[in-house]
Amino acid sequence: MKVLLEELIALFSQFPGVGRRTAERFAFYILSLPKTKALEIADAIVKIKDKIKNCPLCNNLSEEGLCSICSDDKRDPSLLCIVEEPRDIIALEKTNAFSGKYYVLLGVINPLEGIGPEDIKIDGLISRINSSPEIQEVILATDADAEGEATAAYITKKLKSLSRNIKITRIGFGLPAGADLEFADRNTLIHALHSRREFAG
Amino acid sequence: MKVLLEELIALFSQFPGVGRRTAERFAFYILSLPKTKALEIADAIVKIKDKIKNCPLCNNLSEEGLCSICSDDKRDPSLLCIVEEPRDIIALEKTNAFSGKYYVLLGVINPLEGIGPEDIKIDGLISRINSSPEIQEVILATDADAEGEATAAYITKKLKSLSRNIKITRIGFGLPAGADLEFADRNTLIHALHSRREFAG
Repeated sequence: MKVLLEELIALFSQFPGVGRRTAERFAFYILSLPKTKALEIADAIVKIKDKIKNCPLCNNLSEEGLCSICSDDKRDPSLLCIVEEPRDIIALEKTNAFSGKYYVLLGVINPLEGIGPEDIKIDGLISRINSSPEIQEVILATDADAEGEATAAYITKKLKSLSRNIKITRIGFGLPAGADLEFADRNTLIHALHSRREFAG
Repeated sequence: MKVLLEELIALFSQFPGVGRRTAERFAFYILSLPKTKALEIADAIVKIKDKIKNCPLCNNLSEEGLCSICSDDKRDPSLLCIVEEPRDIIALEKTNAFSGKYYVLLGVINPLEGIGPEDIKIDGLISRINSSPEIQEVILATDADAEGEATAAYITKKLKSLSRNIKITRIGFGLPAGADLEFADRNTLIHALHSRREFAG
């Protein structure tokens, strides 16, 4: 018993946010499942690695060819939202508040980890914009941390050097919805003050 | 992308204690792995279902035949510790405080869920004891909840009806190690008072 169970527990322990105890619970959960269900999980893991690729146009996840957003004619092609990872698209899509297209950088500039502009898909972004005259606004939706800010700044510089005149915007920063001001951290409050807008009341 | 990824997220969402957000993180973690690593996880899941059985003597998990504890001659055969599930054995073995043998009930009497004595391995326990004259003490280590108590009481009644005289004990209840008395719940304090012992100081 020890060896196989320990192997599976060790593998589950490497899942994000999973410690030894949780990995044990997962392994016993697998043990308790009917065999067909366990095979379904194993199969889904294999399939996801076999079948899911990056969209050749935007780097979003895609089962084949263009992703569902790039191939959707109803989306506004004049708006291009730049994100770090495919999972950012999922979060934004859940809002139903954005109807444009996306471009995924598949990373972020991070000098401390030796990740420069050439290591993420910025060249592809510039080609995409150069070959897409319909794009009028680029929304920089990288994270609100140092790396996301540096990446947004780098892309802005690159886009300003193009002969074309494209509107460049950054997603808003400030207090998260429902937040208590007294518990917000200093940087959030600084952002919230800088991003203040006139208020009709 | 949607279908395969959603399938895997749905499967991970059924893991114990895992919500939608965590299941998404797990699915993206699988996506980010090298293919060999993902295959290793799938393979470990299949193997655990294929290879791990219950020990024919004690119902503990076992890769083949008798489990590692039943087949260990150095363990004291006069002590038999009764637990609900194989994972209870793992917890007890980590203490290095018990050197006897185990018997796993593979469940607990739970009238509310329609689980009676005949649905767990109590008959097997009685046979095991009848065929093992070396057993002198049975330690009831079922959980400290209503079901564990009811199961311990039921087994006690059964054992007392045997012609043999076996010592029957229940694991101790009380304050957990390191606990603050003021934060202990009422039932724990009642147990702790009932289980008080003379103290040399």
